[in-house]
Amino acid sequence: MTDDICRGRRPVLDLLEKSPSRCAKLLIADNVRPPFLDELLDLARASNVTWQIVKPEALDKIAGGEKHQGVICRLTQGKVLDLDTFLKSVDKKSPVLAVILDHIEDPHNLGAVIRSAEAGGASCVVYAKRRSAVPNDTVIKTSAGASLRLPLIAVANITQTIERFKSADFWTVGLEGKAGDSLFDEKLPERCALVIGAEGEGLSRLVSESCDMLKRIPLKQEAVSSLNASVACALGIFEWSRYYG
Amino acid sequence: MTDDICRGRRPVLDLLEKSPSRCAKLLIADNVRPPFLDELLDLARASNVTWQIVKPEALDKIAGGEKHQGVICRLTQGKVLDLDTFLKSVDKKSPVLAVILDHIEDPHNLGAVIRSAEAGGASCVVYAKRRSAVPNDTVIKTSAGASLRLPLIAVANITQTIERFKSADFWTVGLEGKAGDSLFDEKLPERCALVIGAEGEGLSRLVSESCDMLKRIPLKQEAVSSLNASVACALGIFEWSRYYG
Repeated sequence: MTDDICRGRRPVLDLLEKSPSRCAKLLIADNVRPPFLDELLDLARASNVTWQIVKPEALDKIAGGEKHQGVICRLTQGKVLDLDTFLKSVDKKSPVLAVILDHIEDPHNLGAVIRSAEAGGASCVVYAKRRSAVPNDTVIKTSAGASLRLPLIAVANITQTIERFKSADFWTVGLEGKAGDSLFDEKLPERCALVIGAEGEGLSRLVSESCDMLKRIPLKQEAVSSLNASVACALGIFEWSRYYG
Repeated sequence: MTDDICRGRRPVLDLLEKSPSRCAKLLIADNVRPPFLDELLDLARASNVTWQIVKPEALDKIAGGEKHQGVICRLTQGKVLDLDTFLKSVDKKSPVLAVILDHIEDPHNLGAVIRSAEAGGASCVVYAKRRSAVPNDTVIKTSAGASLRLPLIAVANITQTIERFKSADFWTVGLEGKAGDSLFDEKLPERCALVIGAEGEGLSRLVSESCDMLKRIPLKQEAVSSLNASVACALGIFEWSRYYG
């Protein structure tokens, strides 16, 4: 029930300001006072967003026990594309970065990845339909709203998706701690699909074998250190962005 | 009460394996079963860590309502240095990176920063004693144990700290969204103190004026996009690391 809502003051204000087309309905607790109440209503009116004043208990129920600070927005579907539409729509001549997630499970990491992907100029984030975090309201929050703006593509199978990107003239680059090549040694390809593994496990064997190339982020003390999946992903994204962004 | 504990299965195992000298006492709930129980006891015995079997309710109380998965370790003090000791101890001839945090408030961000700092080869993380997250058990968890290994320096005043680093022949580099220079344009200095601002607000005016130079991470859609403080910090750390790591 929390996959299709946005909750909390800052997230809802962001949503109303930057992506009002994503707001199906705004629900406001009857104990919300001015000036915040006026701010909400002004934004809702400005964008023709339907709103309703409700009992705080109703919001508690919708939020499923999560904090909502008196305000929840029911969402329409985000920019969820299918892979075909995306691959047909991308410019054949400009640099393009796609981010493919091999089963990221933590919605905070998914949100962080989407936020960095938008900021670094990626054109989409691809995620698996199963055994993965989905772009719910936690993701809206941790992505600072980027999950409402950046095209997201849900796919059934990551390995097949990598093959589809290859057929569409993308180079597929897996980030893998054990790879021989450093991410920093050579320029990333201009049409690049960056493949990021799950927290802890990294890329699955099949996925890493499907990639055109594997790159490692060089770490100081390999025995002990590791990187958070979303940090590793951001380093990959901005490595592309420093040349083509 | 949660500043001096480490809780949860993976964090406690990490602690016992990698930093047993930090374990003051291991507390295990009486409903923890083999093989996890054996794993804990073997590690504790191998490193002479004192342990005790307790009621789960006792752990609930110590964890203050946070999840503990049946196991909590009371911590001894981490590698908290004072600034003098650190500045005296650093090699004058090798590249050195220090990370200075201008009031990061979210312990998840602090943990993420410390994790990236260790992985990228930084020599310490400096944080403010007040109005900042402190290296508590949430930080141990989100830093994947790095906060137990990397020297941490608590200071009273960030601006004065920047001056101290300058006097010790460091170049101080602030990350600032509005800076003119891109982080990616020029090599960072070899002896570098990287200064990172708080979530949302960025560097305070006094702090940014104290830095020798300010750098910006170039973003795609400046109007909307932004970076998480820990991601911005990781990009700065690995920008240094790509040349000196």
